[in-house]
Amino acid sequence: MEDSKYMVKGFKAGAVAAGIKKRGGLDLAVIFSEREAAGAGVFTTNKVKAAPVIVSQEHVRGGRVRAIVANSGNANACTGKEGLAKANRTAEMVAEELGIEPGEVLVASTGVIGAQLNVNLISKSLKGLVQSLSPEGIPRALEAIMTTDSFPKISEFEGNAGGMPYRIVGIAKGAGMIMPQMATMLCFVMTDVHIGVPELRKALSAGVERTFNRITVDGDTSTNDAVLIMANGMAGNEGMDSREYESFRKGLTQVMADLAGMIVRDGEGATKVIEVRIQGAASAADALTAARTVANSTLVKTAFYGQDPNWGRIMAALGRAEIQMKEEDVDIWVEDVKIVDSGVGTGFDREKEASDRMKRKEFSVIIELKQGAFEERIKTCDLTHEYVSINADYRT
Amino acid sequence: MEDSKYMVKGFKAGAVAAGIKKRGGLDLAVIFSEREAAGAGVFTTNKVKAAPVIVSQEHVRGGRVRAIVANSGNANACTGKEGLAKANRTAEMVAEELGIEPGEVLVASTGVIGAQLNVNLISKSLKGLVQSLSPEGIPRALEAIMTTDSFPKISEFEGNAGGMPYRIVGIAKGAGMIMPQMATMLCFVMTDVHIGVPELRKALSAGVERTFNRITVDGDTSTNDAVLIMANGMAGNEGMDSREYESFRKGLTQVMADLAGMIVRDGEGATKVIEVRIQGAASAADALTAARTVANSTLVKTAFYGQDPNWGRIMAALGRAEIQMKEEDVDIWVEDVKIVDSGVGTGFDREKEASDRMKRKEFSVIIELKQGAFEERIKTCDLTHEYVSINADYRT
Repeated sequence: MEDSKYMVKGFKAGAVAAGIKKRGGLDLAVIFSEREAAGAGVFTTNKVKAAPVIVSQEHVRGGRVRAIVANSGNANACTGKEGLAKANRTAEMVAEELGIEPGEVLVASTGVIGAQLNVNLISKSLKGLVQSLSPEGIPRALEAIMTTDSFPKISEFEGNAGGMPYRIVGIAKGAGMIMPQMATMLCFVMTDVHIGVPELRKALSAGVERTFNRITVDGDTSTNDAVLIMANGMAGNEGMDSREYESFRKGLTQVMADLAGMIVRDGEGATKVIEVRIQGAASAADALTAARTVANSTLVKTAFYGQDPNWGRIMAALGRAEIQMKEEDVDIWVEDVKIVDSGVGTGFDREKEASDRMKRKEFSVIIELKQGAFEERIKTCDLTHEYVSINADYRT
Repeated sequence: MEDSKYMVKGFKAGAVAAGIKKRGGLDLAVIFSEREAAGAGVFTTNKVKAAPVIVSQEHVRGGRVRAIVANSGNANACTGKEGLAKANRTAEMVAEELGIEPGEVLVASTGVIGAQLNVNLISKSLKGLVQSLSPEGIPRALEAIMTTDSFPKISEFEGNAGGMPYRIVGIAKGAGMIMPQMATMLCFVMTDVHIGVPELRKALSAGVERTFNRITVDGDTSTNDAVLIMANGMAGNEGMDSREYESFRKGLTQVMADLAGMIVRDGEGATKVIEVRIQGAASAADALTAARTVANSTLVKTAFYGQDPNWGRIMAALGRAEIQMKEEDVDIWVEDVKIVDSGVGTGFDREKEASDRMKRKEFSVIIELKQGAFEERIKTCDLTHEYVSINADYRT
C-alpha cells in the first residue's frame, strides 16, 4: 500500500498500541480534521446498541465534527451505564488533548462484547496517539481497527467541484456482518470537499443503502456497526451544482461499494463471493426480500461451498420468502448457464456446466421471477467448515 | 422395536423395495384403513409445493380417506405438470389395486428434488406392496420413508372414549426441517378413535402448531412437508364428550411432540438439542419471534456447538428481532446459571459454570425480557462441521 496515496487535505490520522487488544499491536486510532467538518453517520439498526454508537449518534446530530476515535479489542457493547460513561469519557479525553469540544468527537469500538473498557489504557496512550498524527496516517489508523480481517480495506475517489479537485478516502473493517464477540463493521470516510450537512447526510444514507446494506455474510447485524463521514471543505470549492453533487454521490457510493465488496470477500471462512440477482420481481420490496432470503439460506450457502448447483434449495428459499412468485414462472442461471427453465430443471449436463462456473472465486446466480420489472442484487459468501470453526472456537 | 406394539385396529401397512432409492432398500410404503376414515392434513406453507402435496391437499379436502402411499428416493418436487400427473397416477394405481377411489388416497414423497419420478417402478411393485400389507406393518412402512434419518421415529398413545379404548400411532421422518435435495419432514398418524372431521382437523392443526412448528434445524421449510392423519372409528366409541376430546387432543399432541423432539435430536450433524425459552414478552407474537430469531441465528448455533455461553450473540439476535425489548431489562440463564443480569454479564465464573451445563446433550437457554406475560419455547440444535459436510457434499 502506498501510504501517500491515501491522503486527504486537512486530515491527519494516527494510531498506537494501547494494550486493549490482548494479543498486542495497534488498537487505538484517531482521525482529526484541522478544520471543523460537516459530519454524518449511519448506525446499526439493532436495538442493542453499543455505548460508542449511542455517543456518536448524539454527537453527529448537529452535523459538525472534528475527530473520530476508535479502538479495537473491546466493543464496549452490553456494558450498561458504566460503558456509556466510558465512551463519553473517551470523547472528553481526546477532545481535551486535541483542543476541541467533546461533542465534536465521534467514537467507535470493536472487539469483545460485554467486557468493560479500560479507559486508563486510553488515557495513558493519548499523548502518544496525538503525537502519531500525520497526513499519511490513514492506513495506520485502519490497521488499528482491524480484528479478524485478513486484509486491509481502503478505497479512494478523486473528483472535481467548482473547478477544485477533491478526494474521498474510505477505510473499513469487518469480516462477517457481525461477530459480536470480537468484531463488527466499521467504515470511516474522509473528504476535503465542501458540502452542506443535509446533502452529505443524503449522499451517505443513499450510498450505504446501495452498498453495505446489500451484502450479507450470516444475516446478523452487529451492536456496533457504524459508517461515519467527515467533509472538511478544504478542497476550496464554494459549493456544488447538481451535476457535481451527483458526481460526489457516485464517488462516495463507489468507495463504499469497494469496501463492502472487500468485506464480503473477507467473510469469515468464505471461499467464494456470490452475487444473487433477482429480476422480474413484482415490487422493489419483493426483489430485496427474495435476494436476502436466498443469500442468507444456510442450505443455499453450503451448496455454494460444495459447488453444487442445487437449484431445489433456491426454489425452496424463494417459496418461503414472502413474495409474489409462481413456481412455473421461475428461471435460474449460474452465470450464463440456465439451470431452471419455467420452474423445472434443465438437466444433468447443464448442472455439470453450472458446477464448473461455481468453481470460480466469484460468480452470479440470476433468478428471473417474471412477476414485474423490479431488480435487486445482494452479495453473499459461502458457508464453510472454516466459518463454523471460527465461530464455534471463538473465545476458547 | 416391538412391531406388535404399534398396531392400530383396522389399519394395515406394508412396504417394498421398488428401486426408486438409488442405494436400494425399502422405498415405497402404503398404509391402508379397512374402513373409510376421517382424514386431515397440514402441509408446507412454502409457495413451492411438491406434486404429492398438491394432490393430497385436494384429496383430503372432503375429509374422507382410506390410504396413504409414500415413497422415498424422489421428492417429485419442481417437476411441473408431468410431476403432478405422476402423483395423480400413483394415487390411481394404488386405489385400483386396493379397490378404493383415487380421491381416497393421500400421496407423499421425499428424496431428490427436480427429477421426474419413474412411475413404472411403482406400477411394477404394486402387487407386492399390497401383498405386504399387515397389521404389524407400520414400522416397516416407516423404514421405507426414511432418508438421512439416523433412527426411526415412532410414538404411540392409548386413550379411552365412550368406554372404549383407542390408540394413536404416529410415525415421522426428517433430520433437518428441510433438505430439499433428499429429504423433508413427513408425519403420518393412525388412530382407531371415532371422531368428526372438523374436530380431527382442529386437533391436528393445534397439535402441529405446538409441536412441529416449534422446532427448527436451519430455518428453512420444505416443499414436501406434510402431516397426515387417518381416524377410522374402529375403536367403536359412539362419539366423544368434551373431556374425552381434550384427552384425545392432548394424546395426539404428545405423539407429535415426541416425533418433533426426535427430529430435532436427529438434526443434520447436530450434537445437542437446545430449548430456547422466551419469558416476559410483550405479546405472543413477540415471544415467538424472539425465540425463532435466537434459535435460527447461525452465530448462536455455532456458539452452542462450541459450548460457549456467548450471550453477546443472543443479545444481538434479540436486538435485531422486531420485538419490544430493552437491553437493560434482559436476563439470560443457561439452565440454572444466570449469565446476564439486566443486560450486563455476570462475569467469568458464571460463564464457566454455564459452559459446563452446555456440555450436556440437552439444555435450556432462558431469556427473560420483562416486557409482559407471554412465553414461548422453540427447540433447536447446534450448527456443526458435520452440518456443513452433509449439506455441501450432498449430491457428490
